[in-house]
Amino acid sequence: MMNEQQYQECINACMECANTCDYCASACLNEANVANLRNCIRLDLECAAICRTAAEVMSLNGRFSEQICNLCAEVCHACADECQRHAEMGMEHCRECAEMCRKCAAACEEMAHHAVR
Amino acid sequence: MMNEQQYQECINACMECANTCDYCASACLNEANVANLRNCIRLDLECAAICRTAAEVMSLNGRFSEQICNLCAEVCHACADECQRHAEMGMEHCRECAEMCRKCAAACEEMAHHAVR
Amino acid sequence: MMNEQQYQECINACMECANTCDYCASACLNEANVANLRNCIRLDLECAAICRTAAEVMSLNGRFSEQICNLCAEVCHACADECQRHAEMGMEHCRECAEMCRKCAAACEEMAHHAVR
Amino acid sequence: MMNEQQYQECINACMECANTCDYCASACLNEANVANLRNCIRLDLECAAICRTAAEVMSLNGRFSEQICNLCAEVCHACADECQRHAEMGMEHCRECAEMCRKCAAACEEMAHHAVR
Repeated sequence: MMNEQQYQECINACMECANTCDYCASACLNEANVANLRNCIRLDLECAAICRTAAEVMSLNGRFSEQICNLCAEVCHACADECQRHAEMGMEHCRECAEMCRKCAAACEEMAHHAVR
Repeated sequence: MMNEQQYQECINACMECANTCDYCASACLNEANVANLRNCIRLDLECAAICRTAAEVMSLNGRFSEQICNLCAEVCHACADECQRHAEMGMEHCRECAEMCRKCAAACEEMAHHAVR
Repeated sequence: MMNEQQYQECINACMECANTCDYCASACLNEANVANLRNCIRLDLECAAICRTAAEVMSLNGRFSEQICNLCAEVCHACADECQRHAEMGMEHCRECAEMCRKCAAACEEMAHHAVR
Repeated sequence: MMNEQQYQECINACMECANTCDYCASACLNEANVANLRNCIRLDLECAAICRTAAEVMSLNGRFSEQICNLCAEVCHACADECQRHAEMGMEHCRECAEMCRKCAAACEEMAHHAVR
């Protein structure tokens, strides 16, 4: 069973991840090679939207908290995979985003698997 | 395979449902028997949050469109069930919300099952 | 004073505009000359976020409805100006977005000026 | 001029405040005297929506960041005033929410007044 501290950590991870993904999308838009970053930008925005909603649903103590966290973990892994490729080409914002997405995915998986409601 | 018209209809249904749920929550807050409507308000807000994100993800042509629509359909059914109970007690905003939630759930299920991406 | 029908039309305009802006951002990302559309994409996303919130605040019958509508009108005009430039270069999604943004700005100005709360 | 650290602190304050407001709304819904907390719940939800969008717009480095922060500060003060009244009646979630709203308002005012863009 999840304790309140873990629950709050998952909310915080989702909010921080939403912010990091939006920032990564914005930074990608400024890059010279923006044409190579289309998928990254789109996935960043999608991931931000779902992270933001996961945090909102958990804050409302919603009954679909586990389901949205499960989906959030999936999107975070996809976004981390995409960002990781650009991180290896030297994009610092993508490196940070990949790292944050992995952390958020782990918090969401913990939440989804251990919560007893 | 989903055609563009159906896709747009699902986006519209999600946006309209988000609006209807927020309105229902607000109307419930004004009711004399607000204490009996706690679950309805919470579920309205949760449903609105997920509908709004489903519309956003589809508008962005996101790759998790089906998954968020699947979850959205589930939440809409739960919200419709809850609102239906209050509709039977004469709450008009709950009757309208239940109806909109069923319509949105159907559009999301259509989207989730027939989309080929 | 604003009647309920006008209020609902403003909510609908904001939701439709949010959707149109997100779609324009996504379509811009697919364009060959995406590098010329950076500002357009960023403004689309910003406009979508504020339109979505304006609709939410009005649906909740929030006391800051006029203020968010005033800001929404400003962002919509800025987004319409930017999209208009690309519409003149033949971008159909930008033409549609500029048109929708003007319509939403007008609805928000009507709302902000005539509402008596 | 605002430095990057202050900018990030404002984003964090807005996200944390959105979460705290949603949580306060949810906790108010559970209270025995929910009928006395209608305005508090509505304002919490409105404040959460605007805080979330302020964080999103800043993360996107949007050109309306100051304006949304100005509005956010206003809503936060209104929400803090309302919560303060219930805090004095012993509601711990309202006390925490009032405190967070004041902190977020200060961060948004700092952002709106000192940012040079």
